[in-house]
Amino acid sequence: MERVAIIGASMTQFGQREGEWVLDLLAEAGLGCLEDSGVDASDLDHLYVSNMASGEFEGQTGIPNALAHDIDAMPAYTQRVDQTSSSGGAGIYAAWQSVASGASDMTMLVGGEKMTHRTTGEATDVIASLTHPAEYKHGVTLPSFAGLTARHYLERFDAPRDSLAKVAVKNHKNGVDNPNAQFQKEIDEETALESPIVADPLRLYDFCPITDGSAALMLCPESVAEEYTDDYVVISGIDGATDTHVVHEREDPTVMGGVVESGEGAYEMSGYGPDDIDVAELHDMFTILEFLQMEGLGFAEQGEAWELVEDGYTERDTGELPINTSGGLKSKGHPLGASGVAQAVEIYEQLMDEAGPRQVDADVGLCCNVGGFGNCVITTIMEAAR
Amino acid sequence: MERVAIIGASMTQFGQREGEWVLDLLAEAGLGCLEDSGVDASDLDHLYVSNMASGEFEGQTGIPNALAHDIDAMPAYTQRVDQTSSSGGAGIYAAWQSVASGASDMTMLVGGEKMTHRTTGEATDVIASLTHPAEYKHGVTLPSFAGLTARHYLERFDAPRDSLAKVAVKNHKNGVDNPNAQFQKEIDEETALESPIVADPLRLYDFCPITDGSAALMLCPESVAEEYTDDYVVISGIDGATDTHVVHEREDPTVMGGVVESGEGAYEMSGYGPDDIDVAELHDMFTILEFLQMEGLGFAEQGEAWELVEDGYTERDTGELPINTSGGLKSKGHPLGASGVAQAVEIYEQLMDEAGPRQVDADVGLCCNVGGFGNCVITTIMEAAR
Repeated sequence: MERVAIIGASMTQFGQREGEWVLDLLAEAGLGCLEDSGVDASDLDHLYVSNMASGEFEGQTGIPNALAHDIDAMPAYTQRVDQTSSSGGAGIYAAWQSVASGASDMTMLVGGEKMTHRTTGEATDVIASLTHPAEYKHGVTLPSFAGLTARHYLERFDAPRDSLAKVAVKNHKNGVDNPNAQFQKEIDEETALESPIVADPLRLYDFCPITDGSAALMLCPESVAEEYTDDYVVISGIDGATDTHVVHEREDPTVMGGVVESGEGAYEMSGYGPDDIDVAELHDMFTILEFLQMEGLGFAEQGEAWELVEDGYTERDTGELPINTSGGLKSKGHPLGASGVAQAVEIYEQLMDEAGPRQVDADVGLCCNVGGFGNCVITTIMEAAR
Repeated sequence: MERVAIIGASMTQFGQREGEWVLDLLAEAGLGCLEDSGVDASDLDHLYVSNMASGEFEGQTGIPNALAHDIDAMPAYTQRVDQTSSSGGAGIYAAWQSVASGASDMTMLVGGEKMTHRTTGEATDVIASLTHPAEYKHGVTLPSFAGLTARHYLERFDAPRDSLAKVAVKNHKNGVDNPNAQFQKEIDEETALESPIVADPLRLYDFCPITDGSAALMLCPESVAEEYTDDYVVISGIDGATDTHVVHEREDPTVMGGVVESGEGAYEMSGYGPDDIDVAELHDMFTILEFLQMEGLGFAEQGEAWELVEDGYTERDTGELPINTSGGLKSKGHPLGASGVAQAVEIYEQLMDEAGPRQVDADVGLCCNVGGFGNCVITTIMEAAR
């Protein structure tokens, strides 16, 4: 079967976008992606919009149709992809399927969310509505799951508290060089360790912010890609998988089954293994998740990811496997539906040698987008085609 | 490329499902579909959930993950498909792509919506939020578009008002024989013509009701289907297309561009034309839409569908092309995310000779699912494989 190529990418400034709505952000990223790829909107066959909750956040639904209208993409088929906080990754999978099935020869994926006009409490409530009713009624939120998991991890694997802070420090450092990041600001370990407690032992700097933003990718069959450009990226492997939606039913709270399963599927499809990955974007909605994904994807043994982080293994300029060169969700921000797409935008730029001051040496990259607290995970492996 | 088969189908009772939530309905249809197809939940690769607005209607999101959990389908990949009132048709397209791309060898699609716990006004508001912001701010609703379009159609094509009532009468008559229909009750033309005005010239009986319900389909490659059964249905053609999202920008308000484009795509893919279709389920959210789809899909010339309806051409037992043998959205009900799936369930049962008192003689069937006021439309052509 012909491989699926990515021939263009774009993202908006992430952060607080006052006076703009998700439709404005989607249009900005979408038009940017059309320009970046040299594709005319009238050549789009399919247009996917990754978005979790425009209805809940803005009282506006039907945004894929409105976007198709506003960027003049009609009669392109369009649809919204929702997989909670992994809507972006799910969008990549949907866009990949649209091309791989032969349904579309040119698919644009645009992910976006507008959140900062709501209070942090309101946004947390919308996100908490994704938990299983059996747990939701007890008042759980994703941060509470993260706190419980972090405590268990630190105690069981004898990991120092500051190893989590090191994730935040690293990702903030990387974000300084990303002009689209919400926080382009270094922090030190002391700041992270002394920030207010949110869900003990996790503190403010263990959490990603509430963010507005959008990101986009252009996908097509490799034979079509070659009509547009000599330099492009291909999706070598992609898979998605669920874990128990009731989090307390998991046998081992430090193992994210969706990460393991989707990773295995993506590795198998690509023919690559963990050792072949040169750069990765992991879903650091909470610092502890970076450890769990490193372990679930085979970059570290169970209970040992924290040691690799302490040893600098995941540092951008000096580490063996740079993780979250974009700044990650932690410093780049986490506009739900955009995040998984933005992860792939970063890997695309790294593989295309377009990452500027963030550039690392990479031929093969991976992104892992986590829905809910690992309830559904999509792992994508990409490689440079030239 | 191998064809995509449908090997099982199920739907719940449509209507007012007090004390149940969308997750209950999805589980009921999903478990019914697993049983009907003889597939074990652990054999599912992908699970798609068509749903427009569980967050807005119930304050519950992440329902695909919850469903995967509740029917024990983990680690099957899952995702929500939203294309407003055509979420069900979009789900068929997504499920088709998942199989045709090779990503999944067994995909279950479950569509559902829970609406009746909200007032008709509240439900209409949620649906109106799908209109373009440029029109939404003026207070438009889908019924208002329908009223304007019906007036234009009747005047321009010199169609009698009672031709619209005949659509309602026919679909109610068909619904009497559908045990899952919300209204299993015949109405006469006089009742329809004298019912209260909603959006002049359309009256109460020109509109579908607010409904709770769910419907499901099982899709797989034809080679896999043959391991399960000798009798199955294949998807011969499927396509989706958008029209202007700002409805007042359409050149001709009686032409639904999304219907025309998606129909042409589905015909081309299937090798069939309008004359080959033996039975059709059209999206009669409003009676006038049945005329517009008959014309957009080539069953009638522009402005002439009303004459075919008057002549009995679309009657179930005596007509040349039975339309909405299920009772249609009009009498079966319209639980947004379920409707497009339920259309295909009816066509599946017709092609499998399982439609009981509704059975017509059919080898090839079509369904047309309309999002918004034709903002995005999905047309699916199916045929019996035996």
